[in-house]
Amino acid sequence: MIIQRLAVIGVGLIGGSLARALRQGGHVADVVGFGRSLGNLQTAVDLGVVDRAEVSVAAAVRGADMVIVAVPVSSIKLILSELAPLLEDGAVVTDVGSVKGVVVQAAREALGTRFAAFVPGHPIAGAEHSGVGASRADLFQAHHVILTPDDDTDPAALARVRTMWQATGADVMTMPIVQHDEVLAACSHLPHMLAYALVDMLVRRNDHRATFDLVAGGFRDFTRIASSDPVMWRDICVGNSEALVRVLREYRDNLDVLISAISKGDAKRLEQTFARAKRARDKYIKGDG
Amino acid sequence: MIIQRLAVIGVGLIGGSLARALRQGGHVADVVGFGRSLGNLQTAVDLGVVDRAEVSVAAAVRGADMVIVAVPVSSIKLILSELAPLLEDGAVVTDVGSVKGVVVQAAREALGTRFAAFVPGHPIAGAEHSGVGASRADLFQAHHVILTPDDDTDPAALARVRTMWQATGADVMTMPIVQHDEVLAACSHLPHMLAYALVDMLVRRNDHRATFDLVAGGFRDFTRIASSDPVMWRDICVGNSEALVRVLREYRDNLDVLISAISKGDAKRLEQTFARAKRARDKYIKGDG
Repeated sequence: MIIQRLAVIGVGLIGGSLARALRQGGHVADVVGFGRSLGNLQTAVDLGVVDRAEVSVAAAVRGADMVIVAVPVSSIKLILSELAPLLEDGAVVTDVGSVKGVVVQAAREALGTRFAAFVPGHPIAGAEHSGVGASRADLFQAHHVILTPDDDTDPAALARVRTMWQATGADVMTMPIVQHDEVLAACSHLPHMLAYALVDMLVRRNDHRATFDLVAGGFRDFTRIASSDPVMWRDICVGNSEALVRVLREYRDNLDVLISAISKGDAKRLEQTFARAKRARDKYIKGDG
Repeated sequence: MIIQRLAVIGVGLIGGSLARALRQGGHVADVVGFGRSLGNLQTAVDLGVVDRAEVSVAAAVRGADMVIVAVPVSSIKLILSELAPLLEDGAVVTDVGSVKGVVVQAAREALGTRFAAFVPGHPIAGAEHSGVGASRADLFQAHHVILTPDDDTDPAALARVRTMWQATGADVMTMPIVQHDEVLAACSHLPHMLAYALVDMLVRRNDHRATFDLVAGGFRDFTRIASSDPVMWRDICVGNSEALVRVLREYRDNLDVLISAISKGDAKRLEQTFARAKRARDKYIKGDG
């Protein structure tokens, strides 16, 4: 048994899937859920994802030795402020936010002397579906979970969070906070912006019904991430704006080069660019369908 | 029996899948394949996709009442010039190119007096895989096939090509040539450019191994189309440069607005944009996994 009582603050896709995975593996004795939506909490109880639901943070964290904060990034600071005075001795707190710099700063301010018990985390899993109804015990299997400990993070707390995620089948790695936010800006936040911008542009065309009706599987795959949660992505943009703006500008400059090559009919350069991209993708993206 | 003898000029994914579909449905008596690669032709024979292979266009189209030209767009004109003097009376020629304006122009020049027998076509199906080995009888089922007849196209030829594609399970529609190239620039060519540009940018990063290793399913889906055939996409860029440059510039301008909103931390605008895109995608893209 890794955890006696797990408090899941925000029982959505990620929080719910973590609870399911730990319970299925027999790694947790008792799961308490907290959330703002009574309907969602009731679903979590009905599905057996949590043993009981609480509508106050105080009640949810009482007696918990592990607290997972799985709420939108913009809500993390408030939640941490509420639970800081209520944390049990030895309890560990971790989050699942997609950006880590702003979260760590918020945690430092909100937790004060308890900051060492906080382990910043980011499971690289998820889907465009959200809510506890979409949660699955196998969501994290063979997926990466990145932990970004601060210099002040208690090594014992880090070890406990690592053990917890490993128990879900995840591949756990640690990474400096700044590196996390830069790498994720490039490989996750940037593609989401590109997909959102594309769908948003196409829907404003007069012929958008015909356009969307025409498109084949490639477009469906390409734009799937544009069906992601708008609030979550708003928070990521605000929380990682510096790195994200940097890669967006770099991308736009690359696009300008491509536009110029197409304008000039530079067939050789176009073919080289496409071939290089194809080679890279075929080489690095494994397990393609 | 819709076709007595089908000549497949270019036995790749599309040409091979068409032959398979027609044969499986009992809609064709005899299939002759032509291609530049002897190895690929041998595979086509071994797989039973074609009854026999020819290494000259002349031999392939002899006696054919339907000729499907399924070669890269940049090769269509040469092929049509070669087969023009050899076409049987009453034979119909169609193509599968992803751009139609340049193809129709090339066909008019190459076919001369036989131009009326040419039906410009574009099956909206395919994959990042290519070659006859990837061909499947069900590739076109429930997919759109767009035919873009010119004013000079023989209505009887159009009807025969329509019947042929319907026999594969495809949903056949007609569209003006210019509209085809504009709509496809927006919903197909543009996304491919975005995916190619993204992968090409990321692979030039120092940390690209770590980056690609990290990425989750969303990135895999988003970049799948960057594994498409570089020659095909080079030809599309050259053949549809005007419409493509127009949508690329429009997209870049939209990206600038988004970059500006992120720079300013305009959370409200960001959430609105993402929510609008999500609503549009959820509404219009059916059959999502």
